[in-house]
Amino acid sequence: MKEIVILGAGNVATHLTVALKNAGYNIKQVYSRNLSNADCLATLVGAEPVSDLKNLYRDADFYLIAVSDAAILTVAENMPRVSGIVAHTAGSVNLATLERFERHGVLYPFQTFTKDRGVDFLNIPVLIEGNRSDVKRELVELASGISNNVQKADSQKRAALHIAAVFSSNFVNHMYTISQTLLDASGLDFNLLKPLISETTQKALTMNPVDAQTGPARRKDFGVMGEHVERLGSQKLYQDIYQLVSKSIVNTYHPGSPFFS
Amino acid sequence: MKEIVILGAGNVATHLTVALKNAGYNIKQVYSRNLSNADCLATLVGAEPVSDLKNLYRDADFYLIAVSDAAILTVAENMPRVSGIVAHTAGSVNLATLERFERHGVLYPFQTFTKDRGVDFLNIPVLIEGNRSDVKRELVELASGISNNVQKADSQKRAALHIAAVFSSNFVNHMYTISQTLLDASGLDFNLLKPLISETTQKALTMNPVDAQTGPARRKDFGVMGEHVERLGSQKLYQDIYQLVSKSIVNTYHPGSPFFS
Repeated sequence: MKEIVILGAGNVATHLTVALKNAGYNIKQVYSRNLSNADCLATLVGAEPVSDLKNLYRDADFYLIAVSDAAILTVAENMPRVSGIVAHTAGSVNLATLERFERHGVLYPFQTFTKDRGVDFLNIPVLIEGNRSDVKRELVELASGISNNVQKADSQKRAALHIAAVFSSNFVNHMYTISQTLLDASGLDFNLLKPLISETTQKALTMNPVDAQTGPARRKDFGVMGEHVERLGSQKLYQDIYQLVSKSIVNTYHPGSPFFS
Repeated sequence: MKEIVILGAGNVATHLTVALKNAGYNIKQVYSRNLSNADCLATLVGAEPVSDLKNLYRDADFYLIAVSDAAILTVAENMPRVSGIVAHTAGSVNLATLERFERHGVLYPFQTFTKDRGVDFLNIPVLIEGNRSDVKRELVELASGISNNVQKADSQKRAALHIAAVFSSNFVNHMYTISQTLLDASGLDFNLLKPLISETTQKALTMNPVDAQTGPARRKDFGVMGEHVERLGSQKLYQDIYQLVSKSIVNTYHPGSPFFS
């Protein structure tokens, strides 16, 4: 049975580790700088917690680094040299970050992970990169144990995907947050928006988003847009976002047209 | 049985008219400037098509104006005086636009309507406003025939809701469009994003959006943000949106912090 060492104990590490454990892999150790975090996840999957990289198990088949992007290099630099495959799980971190290891790669699960929310790993796309073909093959095999949607993608494609994810997930969620703030300020309930949010997403999942666009900017209705911008006067950043995104919509559907007439 | 005249034959008019017909109302006429559009919807609900406001039936209980925001005033100005209730269906048009009618109001179905997509009207919030209490009461009764979620809301609240809808629906859809454009440019399939889009929305529907935020801006990871901004260099508008929305996220979770350090 393949042996895995997990480095990290946050959302991605937790969901990934649990999925690997459920798929039958042997999780040998969970590393975190913070021993109690390591202990928490390690207990869940019957692994040994470690908080010092010097104590890392040397003979694992895979070392999966699932820490914040900024911490990946530090962890990699302080790990002992190992002969197993060392892979990180980040969208925007270059493969070369791990080049001090003979066999290194990336296993990027393309989903937003939240504490206390289960995810169906089988449907999550997992993107694989490796410095050698045997590394790619072994990582594809590992990922295929937990997902039905495993694909190879180089660092360029992975970065493009990550940026797309920022727009489709992080920015979308911030749009919801802005809406909630605006409704709160008017004494309205966020629940009012839920049928609209559901339908908007269903449309995106079943038709082409570019064809699904509606609203004042799509219609180039500068009267409504002007009124909305005015009403947002006390929230400068939201006003700026309203104008800029509206401009981008007008530009998409009415190219060459001046923004405010 | 209450008699209704529909003014308009677009997406909102069509979905609303079909729902009213299914609820048992008598749709007397469908007006559109374009007779063949009027004919199309009128045939669907057994009504008479009209393309000249002079020929409008005078004794209906309700006249529902479901045309584009900009056209509402023109239609209202050219309608004969009627004793029935005249209501428009727009989010951002003031009640007073219809003040030449003795009994006037608003019946605003809060959803995004798309041609050829069925909607479950029962779950759509419908917001009601009227210039008199009897008008409000009658409009609430009418709307309750097609929706389980009817609420009164004045023009101020309706406008706030409409702005929130622009962020949560129109702008969200544009985020999906931007993602699709970016993936296309890298030869990647939009389907890759669908599990992420589903999960992001599910999170918004079940937890507080402000608590569901993830991503580089949430973490104030300027390294990743800087790299993304650089990669978006050839698409200036998308780059600007990336920076502005990221700034708003940083501002929400790390107030007082400078945007790019």
